[in-house]
Amino acid sequence: MKNTIGNHVAVTLFGESHGPSIGAVVDGLAPGILVDEAAIAALLSRRRPSGGISTARQEADPFVIESGVFEGRTTGTPICIRIPNADTRSKDYAATRWLARPSHADYTANCKYHGYEDYRGGGHFSGRITAALVAAAGLVMPALEAKGIRIATHIRRLGGIEDRTFSDLEADMTCLKDREFPVLDTAVAQQMTDCILAAKQEGDSVGGVLETAVTGVPAGLGEPWFDTVESMLSHALFAVPAVKGVEFGAGFALADMRGSRANDPYRMAGEQVITAGNNSGGINGGITNGMPLLFRCAMRPTPTIGQPQETVDMQSREDTVLQSHGRHDPCIVHRAAVVIDCVTALTLADMLTGRYGTDWLGEV
Amino acid sequence: MKNTIGNHVAVTLFGESHGPSIGAVVDGLAPGILVDEAAIAALLSRRRPSGGISTARQEADPFVIESGVFEGRTTGTPICIRIPNADTRSKDYAATRWLARPSHADYTANCKYHGYEDYRGGGHFSGRITAALVAAAGLVMPALEAKGIRIATHIRRLGGIEDRTFSDLEADMTCLKDREFPVLDTAVAQQMTDCILAAKQEGDSVGGVLETAVTGVPAGLGEPWFDTVESMLSHALFAVPAVKGVEFGAGFALADMRGSRANDPYRMAGEQVITAGNNSGGINGGITNGMPLLFRCAMRPTPTIGQPQETVDMQSREDTVLQSHGRHDPCIVHRAAVVIDCVTALTLADMLTGRYGTDWLGEV
Amino acid sequence: MKNTIGNHVAVTLFGESHGPSIGAVVDGLAPGILVDEAAIAALLSRRRPSGGISTARQEADPFVIESGVFEGRTTGTPICIRIPNADTRSKDYAATRWLARPSHADYTANCKYHGYEDYRGGGHFSGRITAALVAAAGLVMPALEAKGIRIATHIRRLGGIEDRTFSDLEADMTCLKDREFPVLDTAVAQQMTDCILAAKQEGDSVGGVLETAVTGVPAGLGEPWFDTVESMLSHALFAVPAVKGVEFGAGFALADMRGSRANDPYRMAGEQVITAGNNSGGINGGITNGMPLLFRCAMRPTPTIGQPQETVDMQSREDTVLQSHGRHDPCIVHRAAVVIDCVTALTLADMLTGRYGTDWLGEV
Amino acid sequence: MKNTIGNHVAVTLFGESHGPSIGAVVDGLAPGILVDEAAIAALLSRRRPSGGISTARQEADPFVIESGVFEGRTTGTPICIRIPNADTRSKDYAATRWLARPSHADYTANCKYHGYEDYRGGGHFSGRITAALVAAAGLVMPALEAKGIRIATHIRRLGGIEDRTFSDLEADMTCLKDREFPVLDTAVAQQMTDCILAAKQEGDSVGGVLETAVTGVPAGLGEPWFDTVESMLSHALFAVPAVKGVEFGAGFALADMRGSRANDPYRMAGEQVITAGNNSGGINGGITNGMPLLFRCAMRPTPTIGQPQETVDMQSREDTVLQSHGRHDPCIVHRAAVVIDCVTALTLADMLTGRYGTDWLGEV
Repeated sequence: MKNTIGNHVAVTLFGESHGPSIGAVVDGLAPGILVDEAAIAALLSRRRPSGGISTARQEADPFVIESGVFEGRTTGTPICIRIPNADTRSKDYAATRWLARPSHADYTANCKYHGYEDYRGGGHFSGRITAALVAAAGLVMPALEAKGIRIATHIRRLGGIEDRTFSDLEADMTCLKDREFPVLDTAVAQQMTDCILAAKQEGDSVGGVLETAVTGVPAGLGEPWFDTVESMLSHALFAVPAVKGVEFGAGFALADMRGSRANDPYRMAGEQVITAGNNSGGINGGITNGMPLLFRCAMRPTPTIGQPQETVDMQSREDTVLQSHGRHDPCIVHRAAVVIDCVTALTLADMLTGRYGTDWLGEV
Repeated sequence: MKNTIGNHVAVTLFGESHGPSIGAVVDGLAPGILVDEAAIAALLSRRRPSGGISTARQEADPFVIESGVFEGRTTGTPICIRIPNADTRSKDYAATRWLARPSHADYTANCKYHGYEDYRGGGHFSGRITAALVAAAGLVMPALEAKGIRIATHIRRLGGIEDRTFSDLEADMTCLKDREFPVLDTAVAQQMTDCILAAKQEGDSVGGVLETAVTGVPAGLGEPWFDTVESMLSHALFAVPAVKGVEFGAGFALADMRGSRANDPYRMAGEQVITAGNNSGGINGGITNGMPLLFRCAMRPTPTIGQPQETVDMQSREDTVLQSHGRHDPCIVHRAAVVIDCVTALTLADMLTGRYGTDWLGEV
Repeated sequence: MKNTIGNHVAVTLFGESHGPSIGAVVDGLAPGILVDEAAIAALLSRRRPSGGISTARQEADPFVIESGVFEGRTTGTPICIRIPNADTRSKDYAATRWLARPSHADYTANCKYHGYEDYRGGGHFSGRITAALVAAAGLVMPALEAKGIRIATHIRRLGGIEDRTFSDLEADMTCLKDREFPVLDTAVAQQMTDCILAAKQEGDSVGGVLETAVTGVPAGLGEPWFDTVESMLSHALFAVPAVKGVEFGAGFALADMRGSRANDPYRMAGEQVITAGNNSGGINGGITNGMPLLFRCAMRPTPTIGQPQETVDMQSREDTVLQSHGRHDPCIVHRAAVVIDCVTALTLADMLTGRYGTDWLGEV
Repeated sequence: MKNTIGNHVAVTLFGESHGPSIGAVVDGLAPGILVDEAAIAALLSRRRPSGGISTARQEADPFVIESGVFEGRTTGTPICIRIPNADTRSKDYAATRWLARPSHADYTANCKYHGYEDYRGGGHFSGRITAALVAAAGLVMPALEAKGIRIATHIRRLGGIEDRTFSDLEADMTCLKDREFPVLDTAVAQQMTDCILAAKQEGDSVGGVLETAVTGVPAGLGEPWFDTVESMLSHALFAVPAVKGVEFGAGFALADMRGSRANDPYRMAGEQVITAGNNSGGINGGITNGMPLLFRCAMRPTPTIGQPQETVDMQSREDTVLQSHGRHDPCIVHRAAVVIDCVTALTLADMLTGRYGTDWLGEV
């Protein structure tokens, strides 16, 4: 439903890039979950632009928890987490109000909201809104971890440069926790950064592929029709700006395999059923099989670029040329990694709460 | 919510492969829509196995409309459409009851339903349930067409063989209507069929990629967070068995482009805003821009194969080998094309009804 | 959402009085619940007209379970339960097609469905549809009872004649199980029946008040805003045809009490917290307190009566007089008691499943 | 779903009586609706305690609109409206933390949230949260009025004193707009006030009955099963603290009528179909018939009273006596009138948006 995701743990996002605040209301979280404000801040800092490769706009994200937390723990009632906006230069945007930035939401927002939308800085469509999403997930992430569920995302590919895929999952996930630039092979970090800087220099932008692993999800989660794990996750993932493709397990490569190679044979590992191989990404028939979840998101290059672009004036209905001068990121792939982690966490918290009841996530 | 999809036009699926009936309840359809039983039958026949390349099981799908249709039109109340099961050989399945077919839902269903699931022929997870989905969509498809919305899917790739992509969309969509084997370039049909037969011969299966176009969707449909058009469609698409990847527009290829190439410039075409190029697949910021929707689904090869496979016995908890003898499809990609069309139709009907109200789809 | 009730255990109703079938799809029921077809039939027989006080139409309700039940237990997948229609005399209705029966749904259905509604016998608005609701609840009721939750409804008032209220709850609930005419004081049964027959003789109808008790509901069920137990139950209860008022505990009488009398003091009863008095009907702040739930429903008299009534012709838009000749009930209060039990059962099953998870209701 | 109401226009409440803020997020409102902050403030002032008959706590409600409004109009994106808390004396509550106030939510909250709830001043259960609800409705009310829909509530009964019922609806609704104490017959205002003061003097509280009328709702709104207008409204109404009974039209009085008297004959009034009489409260078969909606809510007396009350200590699990010293209202009936108006407005906005689409409410 619109700006809410989740049936059992529900997150509602509000806010515009240049309005008073952005924020999220998280409803349905179990009572008694420890709220770690430092962990939330840490997540937010992973999303924040840094170094020379991101926008110069300094988005300090000092959040306020308005409700639903008492004496350091969730109460079980809705948590409103709010991030006041600051450092907004609205005049940057007035001049180009009617010029639809190509592949941005300006034109579609105008079609949907008939011109009443807050156009400044992307308004409600701004990537900035993901800060609220990250803050919301920061309430959930420690509870999932306490249940043995870990989530990690790295840049699998960026501007044509490949990181290696996950191998020793637990070790890889641990090391990603400390990486400012989320790659497994540290050697490629510099190449990717150079690639981003080269694009920046040319007033251009680059995209990439993010790869996510989740361990510790119990088998038997998901619904056959229509709330498969793939359906639920992709619903959330495609809401992250710039995601234009999602694949699970071997994904598109499965299309070219034969069944005999694509299938993951079941095997006993002690008392536990595992699969040899994980082409299915931990999901069969839409339901988790106890193996790690594995998926990849294709991230399009940031649509805002410094080069002049052909477009239309939405008011005068004429062809024109747009020359963007606003601050923008030549690449958001590295910043989006934590957002992917966060929507994954929220989706799993929702599904687990549905399956095991409203108190489960708070029980230790 | 579980076995229901849609907030405004909602479809609930029921049934098991070897139970009395499968079916769907469609709620929220506008009153006054002409119900074309022949069109429903035609859709169902596109899903039905045919020729030597599909399972020998003859699934005639004689559906019964139990409610919600009066004097040939929808009444606006829930429509139950039911397909009685026949030609089920349940004894085929009893012998292998506890052997988890690799990459099938047997094991995950067992984890979820604790052994109470109807295991025969895949039960509620069977691809057969998509017949009910197709029948449900058959109620909606003509109403969408009356509104100028057309949907068509072709096999973009199968066993490594490529069909050309869409070029002249309207012409391509028209010709696909009459193709028994849904490819644009008829020359590749035989190659693909040969490829399927070769796999069959070896007791194996093949996968592929389906590509879908939708024209006539008004601009301004979709929600920023979280019910983007991509989110809504992927939610439905990933519920179709065997779909393991979904990409919109240029999809994963966008990850390797620069923004200057990836962006679709807006242009005036007479009074209308269009884009030059459609790398975005008709969707910006999660909202339709009036251009054709374009997306591709990766279909994994059918997990049921004739070759012996390593697996576990879920009851004795031991490694074992599964030798399947049941009827099965060496490929379901060509049959799945219509299912993709159908979940697309249902998703769009749902979103359009939410936007324009409950009567819109029935108005002419 | 429209014709579905329940977020965790969801029931979707379909069917028209004179269509092929009516039925329900129940989704979200835990796997492993014993399905007792005799219990369902017994519930249905309590709803069925009987004796001289109900319509002459013989509604044998031979239901078919189309899905979701395997080897006598729920599988956890959607259960479609279907009741084919028979003994329908559609010609009874054609003559008066455009005459809006006063206080019936004919006119409002016409406004909503623009004339496409199946008008015969009330169509989708017919009280007959409650048979599907009762059958659906028949799947749930035994599971609730196995959890120690009992539900019973008696006629508190009918045509001005009063039954005593509940006193010894457990004994009262037990004796109601065997009563064909659901009153606690058997002496009033004859008076009420006479009252109904007198109304019938005069071509008129009578209403009444149903009173319901529920024991065994754990404390802590319900949500503060907006899914209070009263909200959830009243939502379901007001969907039962003829219900025009719902009150909990002392209900409207509370409006005339002072707080000092209205309040239910808490007391320890051994280890358990109870209340002295139950003016709150087992609910404080929208949440169950462990005491019995108590509520009453006001049932309006059946709108269909034998006397001539002033009305309008919806087609010619003229005042006219309606003389009904169809079969109808002079009273449905006694038949509605089981329907109230059933929507109560479904609502509680839904809320309990949300609270304790998807498997809880099937666990013993 | 939990703390959200509405499927198309959805309101999510957050906040605790003594936390940083309370507030609401309103999602799904059409773009372009004029936001009248003065109108919101006026509604809030009607809810605020006043004179000697209410709590001494001064709740000035300076709200902040954090999002979703731009240049004085709704944008179509979620509106967060926030009311910071002030004047909270938390120490008032610590001493009685474990004493369950009779007929309050203390005990049930403790059962539900396991002691993690913010107990101060009723926490999330506090009547104060209705200020957020009122503010949210203040965004919607002018849009409804622009569509010709008017809502008014008066005190039908209070402490045994009766106000007259509605007679000339339009005139009555107009005069209620200006009444500080919402009664139709100004003569009874003083009697009711005296009655409240008398109860206050004795450390007691009084309840009452609120009666609401809504004009201008188009015919054909509502769903047969299960989202009847009565179901939707009662769902919202029973979420208002202290409501323990809801009846539509003649309500419980219908139970004692015969059909021939209860039925509302249809009549032509010019081109329009009306009913003679309105025992049905404007709703037949769960759907509006175009006549005014009429309903009454039974309000229990405020549970907080000054007299000593028997209760239990939830921690020591012993019987004890509670002597309340906190500020409290001897009566909230007059203050609740506007809250009833507001949940009615929100419910109708939700249903109308579902029926006519997302833009309708903003169109003029």
